[in-house]
Amino acid sequence: MARAAAVALVSGGMDSAVTLAVARRDLAPAPVAVLHADYGQRTETRERQAFRALADFHGVPAHLRLEISLAHLARIGGSSLLAGGPAVPHGGIPHDRPAARAGAAAPPPEPGAIPSTYVPFRNAHLLAVAVSWAEVLGANGIYVGAVEEDSSGYPDCRREFYDAFELAANLGTRPETRLALLTPLVKLSKGAIVRLGMDLDVPFELTWSCYTGEDVACGVCESCQLRLRGFREAGVTDPIPYARP
Amino acid sequence: MARAAAVALVSGGMDSAVTLAVARRDLAPAPVAVLHADYGQRTETRERQAFRALADFHGVPAHLRLEISLAHLARIGGSSLLAGGPAVPHGGIPHDRPAARAGAAAPPPEPGAIPSTYVPFRNAHLLAVAVSWAEVLGANGIYVGAVEEDSSGYPDCRREFYDAFELAANLGTRPETRLALLTPLVKLSKGAIVRLGMDLDVPFELTWSCYTGEDVACGVCESCQLRLRGFREAGVTDPIPYARP
Repeated sequence: MARAAAVALVSGGMDSAVTLAVARRDLAPAPVAVLHADYGQRTETRERQAFRALADFHGVPAHLRLEISLAHLARIGGSSLLAGGPAVPHGGIPHDRPAARAGAAAPPPEPGAIPSTYVPFRNAHLLAVAVSWAEVLGANGIYVGAVEEDSSGYPDCRREFYDAFELAANLGTRPETRLALLTPLVKLSKGAIVRLGMDLDVPFELTWSCYTGEDVACGVCESCQLRLRGFREAGVTDPIPYARP
Repeated sequence: MARAAAVALVSGGMDSAVTLAVARRDLAPAPVAVLHADYGQRTETRERQAFRALADFHGVPAHLRLEISLAHLARIGGSSLLAGGPAVPHGGIPHDRPAARAGAAAPPPEPGAIPSTYVPFRNAHLLAVAVSWAEVLGANGIYVGAVEEDSSGYPDCRREFYDAFELAANLGTRPETRLALLTPLVKLSKGAIVRLGMDLDVPFELTWSCYTGEDVACGVCESCQLRLRGFREAGVTDPIPYARP
């Protein structure tokens, strides 16, 4: 049976690229398995390309790469991030939110504050797959690039959600299965994430964050704006081109 | 937007059929949405037929029926229940376990006591879909036919798992989303489930429980044995035919 020390969720964006690098730093030389999901997001073709490039970069063997389809998420709908849904808004990140402070408790999102790009309970689907695969692989860790404090405010990116899911994962699997859900970026600002990635030699040029474009990043969607703010805060130039930087 | 009071997971087996009847009893005339998953189980064609027959029986409109594919569960493997996996064993239910007593705490499964038909963390995948759909439908309840005390001993059928997942579901969705995971059978014996189903006029002849056959139930797999024990305890004749009753 194939074995791995951990499973990392890898969308192909900057946060998951840094998280994968953290997992490799923490666990090398033990192998880390990588998981990517197509859930009907608009830019999946480009995201999958980024996932594969990152897996190649880290030399992940084929049997520890898993690409899955969660096509029902698009059928269920409820998000502008999904193909066929309403348009992705320009901007929309909370510019006026105070700068995130490491260790400070994030306020819970207020009703109506969740952006239209929120995909209902998406991360639970990804975690369920990661837990099943981890149990079969004998892995004890699941690495997730969730960001809570300096983010779009998705409820399934908050650490308390991961704490509850971790408990469910340990109760819902074999008694000998022991799993930890690791979210090394969850309390970091986007600037700190870029700096951590630079320290770990993350190939940011291989990553993709834009919610709308697949050739050139738009520079105006909330994901592009969060990414660009991170590079600006870190004093680093983002290596990917933008239509409107 | 389509609305429903609850989402019920309906495999097509006797437990989910009784659970759906409980949901209808509790919530009528409000509609109940029904969800069915193909995860590569050996008898999916027959199970889907049972799901559709039960949905027809209850007059569930088309927009409140969702059939999804979780094909990656078969790729991840780790279970004899999955096509391509090892054979489903004959029997294997804990015959020597004391009869389940309502309200008594179930002992946790011991290492190695999980049957080979356990599909790693399967129920979490189904719950994740149900939660996403419930959020979009504006439903507050999710009905699951999990049975803890008189069952095969799957870890993801224990109430404590559903308590943890319920917390994760409420933390991982919009602040205005309020969800309850309802497991009305979880502390019942199989005999009590059959009696409850008889009280609610459940069409047991439409249901399918066998893990191996699709034409005639085998009568020897653990699922058939649990079902037959339930009908025997209830003093009721199971209306479906068996190859070896």
